[in-house]
Amino acid sequence: MSSGKPFSGLTYKGPLTDIVLDAMGSDKSPEPEIRGAILACRNLPVRVHLVGPEQTLRPALQSHLRNQKLPIEIVHASEWISMEDKAAIAVRSKRDSSMRVGLKMVREGKAAGFLTAGNTGAAMATAKMVLGALPGVDRPALAALLPTSTGSPCILLDVGANVDCKPQNLEQFAVMGEAYSRLVLHVERPRVGLFSIGEEESKGNDLTRETFPLLRDLQADRSMNFIGNVEGRDLYNGNVDVVVCDGFVGNVALKTSEGLAKLVRDLLRSSLSATVTAKVGALLSRQAFNAFKRRLDYSEYGGAPLLGVRGVCIVGHGSSNERAIMNGIRVAAEFAQGNVNAHIAQELAARPTRDPGTLSNGAAKENSGSESNA
Amino acid sequence: MSSGKPFSGLTYKGPLTDIVLDAMGSDKSPEPEIRGAILACRNLPVRVHLVGPEQTLRPALQSHLRNQKLPIEIVHASEWISMEDKAAIAVRSKRDSSMRVGLKMVREGKAAGFLTAGNTGAAMATAKMVLGALPGVDRPALAALLPTSTGSPCILLDVGANVDCKPQNLEQFAVMGEAYSRLVLHVERPRVGLFSIGEEESKGNDLTRETFPLLRDLQADRSMNFIGNVEGRDLYNGNVDVVVCDGFVGNVALKTSEGLAKLVRDLLRSSLSATVTAKVGALLSRQAFNAFKRRLDYSEYGGAPLLGVRGVCIVGHGSSNERAIMNGIRVAAEFAQGNVNAHIAQELAARPTRDPGTLSNGAAKENSGSESNA
Repeated sequence: MSSGKPFSGLTYKGPLTDIVLDAMGSDKSPEPEIRGAILACRNLPVRVHLVGPEQTLRPALQSHLRNQKLPIEIVHASEWISMEDKAAIAVRSKRDSSMRVGLKMVREGKAAGFLTAGNTGAAMATAKMVLGALPGVDRPALAALLPTSTGSPCILLDVGANVDCKPQNLEQFAVMGEAYSRLVLHVERPRVGLFSIGEEESKGNDLTRETFPLLRDLQADRSMNFIGNVEGRDLYNGNVDVVVCDGFVGNVALKTSEGLAKLVRDLLRSSLSATVTAKVGALLSRQAFNAFKRRLDYSEYGGAPLLGVRGVCIVGHGSSNERAIMNGIRVAAEFAQGNVNAHIAQELAARPTRDPGTLSNGAAKENSGSESNA
Repeated sequence: MSSGKPFSGLTYKGPLTDIVLDAMGSDKSPEPEIRGAILACRNLPVRVHLVGPEQTLRPALQSHLRNQKLPIEIVHASEWISMEDKAAIAVRSKRDSSMRVGLKMVREGKAAGFLTAGNTGAAMATAKMVLGALPGVDRPALAALLPTSTGSPCILLDVGANVDCKPQNLEQFAVMGEAYSRLVLHVERPRVGLFSIGEEESKGNDLTRETFPLLRDLQADRSMNFIGNVEGRDLYNGNVDVVVCDGFVGNVALKTSEGLAKLVRDLLRSSLSATVTAKVGALLSRQAFNAFKRRLDYSEYGGAPLLGVRGVCIVGHGSSNERAIMNGIRVAAEFAQGNVNAHIAQELAARPTRDPGTLSNGAAKENSGSESNA
């Protein structure tokens, strides 16, 4: 593996990193995927394997490439999972889906990482089934990257469907999120916080009060930078780099944020178009507004990593454009090159021994409706 | 009690509603409180009892009134609870606090309702101690009113500190929130939703899955308009009028929203001042931006009602200005006139009988650090 700065773009002459891209994931697939793959191959040292129905992808790719030579391969898959498909059913019934075919390539070592902008639940379920969990991980977790006022994103996990978590699950989330922040986002000494409703250790619910001492132990034993309880407002103020929580709580925080962001956009738009003066003002400040939107745009960070599976899996937003796809490909490659999974397994193996009775009970329930090993 | 339209403002000639106002609550107290009381008495059929140290309040009030006659009384209290005070300690140690003196007036029937813009935890603890819970209510709940794209606010409860709730607690929250929405906000047939992470009944955690059938029963028996599970994004899109959840989840949603709203304000400001063109644009669209801010401003709704205590208690934001104080006084008066508490007690008494073993276990834990009956 090349060390140093592997991603200096077009000038890079070393070996390419192989990334599998689900071509049938996004809302407007395969157009953003094809354009994103081209953009990535022009700017990054990657080879992209586009997975989907060959009869659709081949002509579309050719028309965009126009005889240009780029390291893009097409891998045939006869089926794909839609946003409307129920994850559990789709994973069982669509044996030749683009997600499954793509993740198998990761399992078989044919690619270093996988990216999809498709159905999140199906992607998680398929990845868990095809790749399996890392040693020491009871539940893989989906991590969201939130924008902050300092510009450096805050990792929130789990935002998948690990509901009714046990303290050990949150402890593992902390180890996984810390490794990702350090090795992929290059935060030197990530500040890890426990999502609660007050700063004092005694604040919160049964889960947070039982998790607190486990994270404090990690701080003492493994030199993790645990900063204690954090609150909802800390997600966006840059005070913390990694926030761990039950998947129910993470989903609440993420979807509430999406809802408020949409309200803000709608209100701003209607306020700005309410008067003629405001319209002139809006025209003039459009540039500034666009800069503002980019800062809030999750897609700049390239998607949500699924942490704790044996392989690299990134889930992008359904509305991803070509730029978001390229960023996702970049993140998948950096995730693979950072050896994050090896570090996670190592950290968890070195973790202080717990009461076996507690550990055997360590798996959180998954949100019913999805499945882990269908 | 007068029926019909009791609040037609200055033209109203009927009896005045007595509202107690903690004069020492807000960040800039007592200035916003005094000005808000004056504004309220000019516009609403209310008599305001300002509670706080008489030697401070008397001259300040006189200088604002300038011989004008308004129905404002001063009630002496020698102490007050600050924002920094720990709720549990303040409630026990400050026996003559403005909150306690004011709430006693409600208990003794000297006033119809109480408003404070002070320490939320202390206000809740004092109200529970002084007023007690309504019959059938295991845990009073704090309800936040959130702005939506349709203009009609969404009630979210509990946002207080009722963590690790039982299904019966959420059932009671539903009854209380529905009554408030109908009788104070005048929503004809409030849509009640259960805060979860997916629409299907099976989605969510143990608590939501066990609560779902209780709310469905309420729909069948008491004609509550239960619309099933709702998600974070529904808080702001106008699809639901009342959302019930555990106090941990409600706090997460509220504080996350506050954090994101602050980030949006900061980013907009910095984006708008980044370029000269943008500066001109910002000047021209300031009017529109102010309209937008007003729509997002919780204080327009007058504060958060504490539901389930024997009396009327409203908790406003610490940054309340005189307009927010006036709105809070109006809401307290409408809360009292709507006979919300009588309706809540009646609804809960008529509720389908539950297994007593389950019911005896019905009290949620409170967030440690506060107390209920100190």
